[in-house]
Amino acid sequence: MPTTTAMRTLDEHRAASLALAAPLPTVVVGLPDALGHVLAQDVRTDEPLPRWDNSAMDGYAVRADDVRDASDATPVTLRVVADLPAGSSGRPVVEPGTAARIMTGAPVPPGADAVVPVEDTDAGTTTVEVRASKAVGQHVRRAGEDAVPGDLVVAAGTLLGPAHVAAVASVGVAQVAVHRRPRVAVISTGDELVTPGTTLAHGQIPDSNSWLLAAAVREAGGEAMRLGPVGDDPDALRDLLHGLDGGVDAIVTSGGVSVGAFDVVKAALLDEPDVVFVPVAVQPGKPQGLGRLPGGTPVFALPGNPVSSFVSFELFVRPALLRMRGLTDVERPTTTAVVDDGWRTPPGRAQVMPVRFVAPAASGAGARTPTHPHVVRATAGGSGSHLVARLALAEGLAIVPPDTQVAAGDLVTVLRVAP
Amino acid sequence: MPTTTAMRTLDEHRAASLALAAPLPTVVVGLPDALGHVLAQDVRTDEPLPRWDNSAMDGYAVRADDVRDASDATPVTLRVVADLPAGSSGRPVVEPGTAARIMTGAPVPPGADAVVPVEDTDAGTTTVEVRASKAVGQHVRRAGEDAVPGDLVVAAGTLLGPAHVAAVASVGVAQVAVHRRPRVAVISTGDELVTPGTTLAHGQIPDSNSWLLAAAVREAGGEAMRLGPVGDDPDALRDLLHGLDGGVDAIVTSGGVSVGAFDVVKAALLDEPDVVFVPVAVQPGKPQGLGRLPGGTPVFALPGNPVSSFVSFELFVRPALLRMRGLTDVERPTTTAVVDDGWRTPPGRAQVMPVRFVAPAASGAGARTPTHPHVVRATAGGSGSHLVARLALAEGLAIVPPDTQVAAGDLVTVLRVAP
Repeated sequence: MPTTTAMRTLDEHRAASLALAAPLPTVVVGLPDALGHVLAQDVRTDEPLPRWDNSAMDGYAVRADDVRDASDATPVTLRVVADLPAGSSGRPVVEPGTAARIMTGAPVPPGADAVVPVEDTDAGTTTVEVRASKAVGQHVRRAGEDAVPGDLVVAAGTLLGPAHVAAVASVGVAQVAVHRRPRVAVISTGDELVTPGTTLAHGQIPDSNSWLLAAAVREAGGEAMRLGPVGDDPDALRDLLHGLDGGVDAIVTSGGVSVGAFDVVKAALLDEPDVVFVPVAVQPGKPQGLGRLPGGTPVFALPGNPVSSFVSFELFVRPALLRMRGLTDVERPTTTAVVDDGWRTPPGRAQVMPVRFVAPAASGAGARTPTHPHVVRATAGGSGSHLVARLALAEGLAIVPPDTQVAAGDLVTVLRVAP
Repeated sequence: MPTTTAMRTLDEHRAASLALAAPLPTVVVGLPDALGHVLAQDVRTDEPLPRWDNSAMDGYAVRADDVRDASDATPVTLRVVADLPAGSSGRPVVEPGTAARIMTGAPVPPGADAVVPVEDTDAGTTTVEVRASKAVGQHVRRAGEDAVPGDLVVAAGTLLGPAHVAAVASVGVAQVAVHRRPRVAVISTGDELVTPGTTLAHGQIPDSNSWLLAAAVREAGGEAMRLGPVGDDPDALRDLLHGLDGGVDAIVTSGGVSVGAFDVVKAALLDEPDVVFVPVAVQPGKPQGLGRLPGGTPVFALPGNPVSSFVSFELFVRPALLRMRGLTDVERPTTTAVVDDGWRTPPGRAQVMPVRFVAPAASGAGARTPTHPHVVRATAGGSGSHLVARLALAEGLAIVPPDTQVAAGDLVTVLRVAP
């Protein structure tokens, strides 16, 4: 029988949720699949960077000694012995009195020790007139000046963005070790739920939670397996859950966790020793189930009200999925915002209010802090609203500590949930 | 022959780039594929929301008149005639003297006009003792109180996040009209480039730009087709470009746009009447090619230095791709930041400096504005560095107007390029 525990705080239940997650095993992926994964092993360079002395300019590779006295008034003429585009594998030797035409990035040929930019010459192709002196090493990028073999290129734990993928490519590495993405089964429950697009009988409504949660899993970098909606049959649900146990990295359910007579998730998990159903001191999202199935798979049993599901996913599931991906920073960015409308808060519970950002009011209390963004409730009916259509307007979640009033002009902490 | 134009400002070239883009045609996708697309047509509800009067609580549907005098001292006993879970299609009539056990969300049965929460009863199953009076309509959500048929649910132009997908599902809509994602061909050029993982001959380096740009296209919501690297053969490149023309939504090239002797992209597009090669007053990223191929496909010819490619993509290509996706807000979020290190700026050109955010310095000029984030250069070698490995540290791009000095403690505008 699930342990019954005393009411938990929001932070306690967040910690318990996160404690179920660990970075997933490493897989090796090629560059085309690396974007968005978290690197599991440092990528280092095997070679010096640059790999060889190369030209920093389009111009002529010369011996500095040959052009020591060159100037506009006393140009020096050199014989052009080679053309060296980038990628040239030729290694002509630049003897005294000669030069090689060279492009930016091309290897500086043996004998040469400086580059004269084309602007300081007559741009000749058989002979070239050099009109400025250059010091040894001028306009030459030295082999190894940026990195030596063994230097770190991208550190383990990095979320790979475009520039990281390019950095890996630039040192000639074609495959990287990354953490596997979590595979997450999403199950909405309730006899009243039918697939969207189906004709509704009286009492039926379209399932939206499984779509909400599957999309939220994808947005958190997981792979979502949407199952259901499933009906209010505890035995069937228990079989489904046990069938998934060990084959997925997490299971997220919605609905059936409350105190009603038909609480299917609670009933299905009644005998699990490692699952608790616990009230959390937060509104919305008070009834929560959390734990592990016998095969070790974490299960997050969220309440079924869509706003509660949305908020619960953000607070409890998303950080766990990010940790599974190998990230250490699993929190949404937060901002301090001015409330423009004010609202009622529940006694004894933290409140999580979906909000949207608005232009500051032209006058009044809302205008007092011009450097803070301003917010109003996204769900006109408040955080208890069942209207997922209004929830879609939410750009953030205001986190209000227990027993705190929220009046127009007050400052609140907002988790940013939209880009 | 490409038109040669005078130097453009950064803003002029951004406007010219964006002018090449228009929202792509509409396609119809199912809910599983809707996430991340931009809605092309408003989604409205065909039905009232809620669809029928339903219970806001777990409890008993009653006739308010029956419990008018109920209290703890004078409870009223009613006969329980039905169990109504959510999803129940039964419509038992609640006659005087009776009640129906009802779950949150279940339709309120005919005859009943109020709900008594279970907490105000003895929770009986054959008869129930009601210990509080309820007004007509109490704890009942009225049909249509949230929305009436025709009301807007998600507006055209919305980038569909999880809550939007759920909102669409909640009104029984299984397919939506969205803008197609742009298909973008990415081509890096240069005889010196080889595929990462290949053994390098002298003078060769691994291609990183095609990986950088393909990943950046994907991150911008496009589908990337990575071609190349291709060599410095203008005829072959021209054939490749013409073969792509009309079959993709955009082409992005890197390299071969400068004033060197082997500028393959410039040479391949020499005869295109609608392509210009133009110097832009920005560092890095001065040499740019831009225009349309004969079949109408926009082509963005970016410089080949990786930092220049990265910056050019951010400034010129990304906004155009977002517009193709149907977005109207195509700009990165910006923030004002305090510079902690200071750096040299070029005369007469805007500068775009990759930066990363740091904790404010404990003392000195950097500490003067505690509400602003602090930044330092991400690329130790400055914005001209060819070291893509350091570029990977960039979290933002500082935009410095022409002829502006940047000293430690100065404020700069930063485009946030990392989440």
